[in-house]
Parts: sequence; structure tokens; C-alpha cells
Amino acid sequence: MKINGKYYRTIWLSNDGRSIEIIDQTKLPFKFEILRLSTIEEVANAIKNMNVRGAPLIGVTAAYGMAIAMHTDYSDRNIDKSYKLLLNTRPTAINLKWALDRCVANLKVIPKDQRVNKAYALAEIIANEDVEICQVIGSYGLKEIERILEKKQDKSIINILTHCNAGWLATVDWGTALSPIYMAHEAGINVHVWVDETRPRNQGGLTAFELGAHGVPHTLIADNIGGHLMQHGLVDLCIVGTDRTTARGDVCNKIGTYLKALAAKDNNVPFYVALPSPSIDFTVHNGIKEIPIEERSGEEQSHVYGIDKNNELSWVNTVPKGTECGNYAFDVTPAELITGGLITEYGIYEASERGLNQLTAGKKLKAVHDG
Amino acid sequence: MKINGKYYRTIWLSNDGRSIEIIDQTKLPFKFEILRLSTIEEVANAIKNMNVRGAPLIGVTAAYGMAIAMHTDYSDRNIDKSYKLLLNTRPTAINLKWALDRCVANLKVIPKDQRVNKAYALAEIIANEDVEICQVIGSYGLKEIERILEKKQDKSIINILTHCNAGWLATVDWGTALSPIYMAHEAGINVHVWVDETRPRNQGGLTAFELGAHGVPHTLIADNIGGHLMQHGLVDLCIVGTDRTTARGDVCNKIGTYLKALAAKDNNVPFYVALPSPSIDFTVHNGIKEIPIEERSGEEQSHVYGIDKNNELSWVNTVPKGTECGNYAFDVTPAELITGGLITEYGIYEASERGLNQLTAGKKLKAVHDG
Repeated sequence: MKINGKYYRTIWLSNDGRSIEIIDQTKLPFKFEILRLSTIEEVANAIKNMNVRGAPLIGVTAAYGMAIAMHTDYSDRNIDKSYKLLLNTRPTAINLKWALDRCVANLKVIPKDQRVNKAYALAEIIANEDVEICQVIGSYGLKEIERILEKKQDKSIINILTHCNAGWLATVDWGTALSPIYMAHEAGINVHVWVDETRPRNQGGLTAFELGAHGVPHTLIADNIGGHLMQHGLVDLCIVGTDRTTARGDVCNKIGTYLKALAAKDNNVPFYVALPSPSIDFTVHNGIKEIPIEERSGEEQSHVYGIDKNNELSWVNTVPKGTECGNYAFDVTPAELITGGLITEYGIYEASERGLNQLTAGKKLKAVHDG
Repeated sequence: MKINGKYYRTIWLSNDGRSIEIIDQTKLPFKFEILRLSTIEEVANAIKNMNVRGAPLIGVTAAYGMAIAMHTDYSDRNIDKSYKLLLNTRPTAINLKWALDRCVANLKVIPKDQRVNKAYALAEIIANEDVEICQVIGSYGLKEIERILEKKQDKSIINILTHCNAGWLATVDWGTALSPIYMAHEAGINVHVWVDETRPRNQGGLTAFELGAHGVPHTLIADNIGGHLMQHGLVDLCIVGTDRTTARGDVCNKIGTYLKALAAKDNNVPFYVALPSPSIDFTVHNGIKEIPIEERSGEEQSHVYGIDKNNELSWVNTVPKGTECGNYAFDVTPAELITGGLITEYGIYEASERGLNQLTAGKKLKAVHDG
């Protein structure tokens, strides 16, 4: 998407045809800086230090890391060594393992001197696949936005609420939850986005940054405000992303999503979740009972980052000395609250066992052929 | 309540029998400092600058301000002048006008040379009345806590969630929503409080401060977390305060209260509102439609205050440059979500037209006699 009028992806090949460049996400939303990664160690550190973030983007970055490694040494030994190094950066990121397995499977079976070209081509394919999935999700979501706008009395504006950041910065381009919003904006619809701050880590700042940089009107609000807005007809629909969806359509997403879904249901506001279908976990049914929720450091709650009065990135401790802080990273929204549906790259499905069975039955299994 | 083992009220007469001392609430929750006010101008500024806050406390402070004014000049002219000066500090605070009207009505009818003593006595009466109301609210609430604990399987702990600060710092002592919690703690019940951060102004810090200073176990959490806790049986009841309750029991309170009430209902967690009965506004019925909600500066959302790395009170701007922030200060929780009831100084009533009619019928109108 655009930043100050120029199109970017979150990752791309440098002019030297060998290194890669990324948007340094540790500086966002306060500073826009590009980081160049030329060695596999630099790539591994960038993943570990969260200079790149978001499952799809991490996978793509790892694939490029493997390509950079091949450039130095295309031996089997270096494939194994690089796989291990990259995999250990973020052990729980599922896309990371998936992308690396795909690289190894494709590289080991071909002659060594073809591995460099193949590895770069593969990384590009994985990046483009991600862009395509996000674009298709956006197109399906756009149709819903158009449909809801059509039914509105005041057709001059459509207000969409989102929680956390499921935008293009977490993917290669377009994003998941924000993709329909960008599509609507591009289609000339007057979209306005209510951006939840998303405490404790304030990912709403990322959402505000990317919407602002692309030119989409938006207002950042405390997580407490959405219910009030819905009571007063100021939200036409909600769209959020998800980390994991269960076989019956429960959705695990950033903490606080559940509260917004409750308010949406109470006020007849359609609630949508946008997701690439691989994030559906068919082994899990009851999300509340079965999904363990990560507890993180209380310091993420107490210490708030921003630009201080000297115009430097700094923090303040917002709680009285000695205060213990609780920090649960995710919550589970039961399927029945996802009244709009699940927006996937195969279409929009009801958040229910039936809906997900339809998705499984209907989707044409794409052959994994990276030829 | 206690601070570091010593009992305090939020306001008291100095040793000189003339000035007053207050806890400087602009420094809380980061620093505990006492401010001495010796002239009516100092009192007026303390109210205006929010060194004192909370409707009941503002009323008491104004009454003491009038007493201090009488000490200098007990003329009718100075009564009128002081009334005007104090009233204009916070024009919308209803207790302020109520306390000042009561002072003027009592002072103007007595001989001038009795006015100083009368004014100080009256301020003390108003303060003590507030303490008594809060104590009685606490006693009624304590019975509910005991009843809920009795029904629990695990009787070793009771978890209470609260939003914003309706503690003793907003009153003279005990508080409203926190009064039952202090009573339970004093009664030896193992209470643990989930303290909502309460963005955008982080009043949860005040709640954490006063609970911590008194020794009540608590954990501060992002406003997003309560729903998840309730889904997992980690909240036994919710108690909040209110700024205004309608004739049918809708409750206007700090923004975000509605979302917690929705989650409580969805998880069968009893939801209580603690309030002094004068805050019921019988002229308003449908709170959502009839109560105008104050919109405040977006800077309260973007700029977060705390202790910086140099151990100084400072702020950081948490949003990207140019981001517009929305800031609605209150929301309305419909009566049907207040499943526990309204805890008043006359007992606990159903949040409904019927419940509030019972309160009106049952309460013995206390004669306003300050002799």
C-alpha cells in the first residue's frame, strides 16, 4: 500500500538482486525507516527482534533468508544450518516452519548450482501468494461493505471498527482485516475507520499509521469506546483479523475482540473476521476451553511507549510503584458472535461447523507446485 | 482509609483550626503529597485545578472554603462573593452547588459573629454525612460479597472487577464501589480486585494506588481483559460507581462500563452499581437516548502520563503524528445488564423502574437540619 504517495510492500529485493529490504516495524508507528538485510544472520536477527512481524511476513522473510544463505554457500549442509538458524528465531510462528519446509523440500532435490536462482524465485512466489490471498479476501470483504452501504439510510459514509492491526504491515501487502477497507477506499467509497488503541501493546497505532499513510480517514479511540459508538449507530460493521479459528468457528484474536463482538451483537452490527484459510485449526473445537492463552509480562501493561517532549521514542510507567499487572494476550470470541461471517480467500462462510465444512468441501485444493 | 498504615480522609481541618489540608490528587497515583489551603482563593484554585476531585469531595471542599472565607470576613457581601467564586470553579458539579446553597441558607439566617463557628461545623457535618453514606453502601455491598462467596465452590478467594475509580479518593472516605471491597477486606475475606486501567485517563492507577496503600490485593489490567477473565471463571462479581442513574435504572458511568456489563451478563457474573441515592436523576428515563455524552480533547487519548526513565512525571505521545483521536468520556449501561442491582445507602434495589420506585417509597426522607 502507499506511504506518502509511494507504493510499498513490507519486504522486497534490493537493487543488488541479493539483499532484501524491509520496513523496520520496531520504529513504527513513530518513524518510517527501511532496513537492508544482506546476510542470513541479519535476516535471523530481524525476525527475532521483530523488525518484521506478522505470521505471513515472517514466512516470506525466512524464505528470502534461505535465498541469501544459498548465495553464500549452496551446500546441503548450509541448507540444514540455515533452516535451523531461521526456525529458532520465533519457535511458535507456524508460517515460519511452513515456509522453511517448503524451501528445503524444493532446494534439496535440485542440482546445487541451480539453488540460488530457485531460492530467490521461491521466496518471490511465497510473497506473491500472500499478496494474492489478501487481495481476494479484500474483494470478498468489499462486496459486503457495498451491500451494507446499500442498505444504509445515510449512504454518504460507512463506519468500520477494527481492533489490533491486521493490516498490510503484518503481511506483504493489503493485510487481512484492512484489505476490504483499502479496497473500499480505492473503489471511491467514503470509508471511515474507528481504530481501537488495542492495549496493552497499542497496535492501533500501527493501524492508524498505515491507514493515515495510505489516506484512509480514521479516528483512534480507547478500547472502551466502541460499545458506546455502536449504541449510537456510529458503527456499520466490525472487521478484525485472527490468529486461529476453530473447527466450529470460534476465533482467537487479540485480547478485547470478544468485548467488541458482544457489543456488536447487542446492537445488531455485523461482525466479520478476515482470515487466510490455513489459520483454521480443525483439531480444535471449543476455543474458550481448548485454546491456551499466552500470559505476557506485566511490563507491557505498565510501560507505555511513545514520543516524549524531547521528540524521542521513550516510555513512561503508568502505574503506581509496586502495582502488579495482568497481561493476557488473546481472547476467544465464540462463533455465535461472529454474525457477519468469516471472510476467507475462498469466500465468506458462516462461523459454524457447517460453514467451515462448506469451506473445506468447496475449496479447490491448490496443488503445491512451485515449478 | 489507610496509606502506609496511617488513617487518612481526603480532606481535614489543619492543626490551626482554620486552614484545611487535602491529598493532592493531581500528583496521584505517582506521588502522595498533602496540600494546605489557607485562603478561599487557594480553595477555589484547588477545586478548579482538580487537586480535589469527585463530586462529594468537591462539595465538602467548597463548604470548608466558605468557612475559611467567613474567618476573614463574615459579612453578607462576602458570603455572596465567596459563593460565586467557589461555584464558578467547576460549573457542572452538582454537589458543589448543593453544598454551597446549604451553607448560604444556614449562614445568612444567623448573627454574623456566629458564622465562623457555624460554617466550620457545617463543613464537618457535610463531610461526615458523606462518610456515613459510603459506609452504609459498603455494609450493604459486603452482605452481597458474603452471599456470593458462600455459594462459591472455592471459598478461599473472591475476585471482584471494577472499572475507573469510585474509591475513597473521590469521596471523603470509603468510596462508593470500593467501599464494599474495603469492608470485605476488613472483615478478613480474601478479596482480590481486578482493576481496569480505564483508558483514556487511566483512573485505574488511582484505584490501584488506594487499594495498594490500604493493603487490598489487586491486579491492574487493560480494559480489554475483563471479558476473557469472566469466560474463565476468574471474576465473581463486578462493582462500579456511576455519575448518574436514570428513573428506569440505566447507569451512566465511565466509558467502557457497558462493555464489562455485557461480558458479565454473557457469563452470569453479577454486576452491581454502587451509588448515593441523590445521584439518581428521576427526570431521565432512557439513558442511551436522553443523556448527552461529554466529548473531551483527543489529547487525553494520545498523551499518556507516567514516571519516565529519569523518575519524573512526564508524558509520551502514543499515536502517529497527525492521528485524530476520539474521546467520549462516559457510556450508558442499560438497566437489564445490571444484574446484581443498585447498592445505595437505603439498601440494594433492582435496576428497574419498579426497583427505584421501591427505593423512593421506602426511604425515610432525612430532615435537612443542621442545628
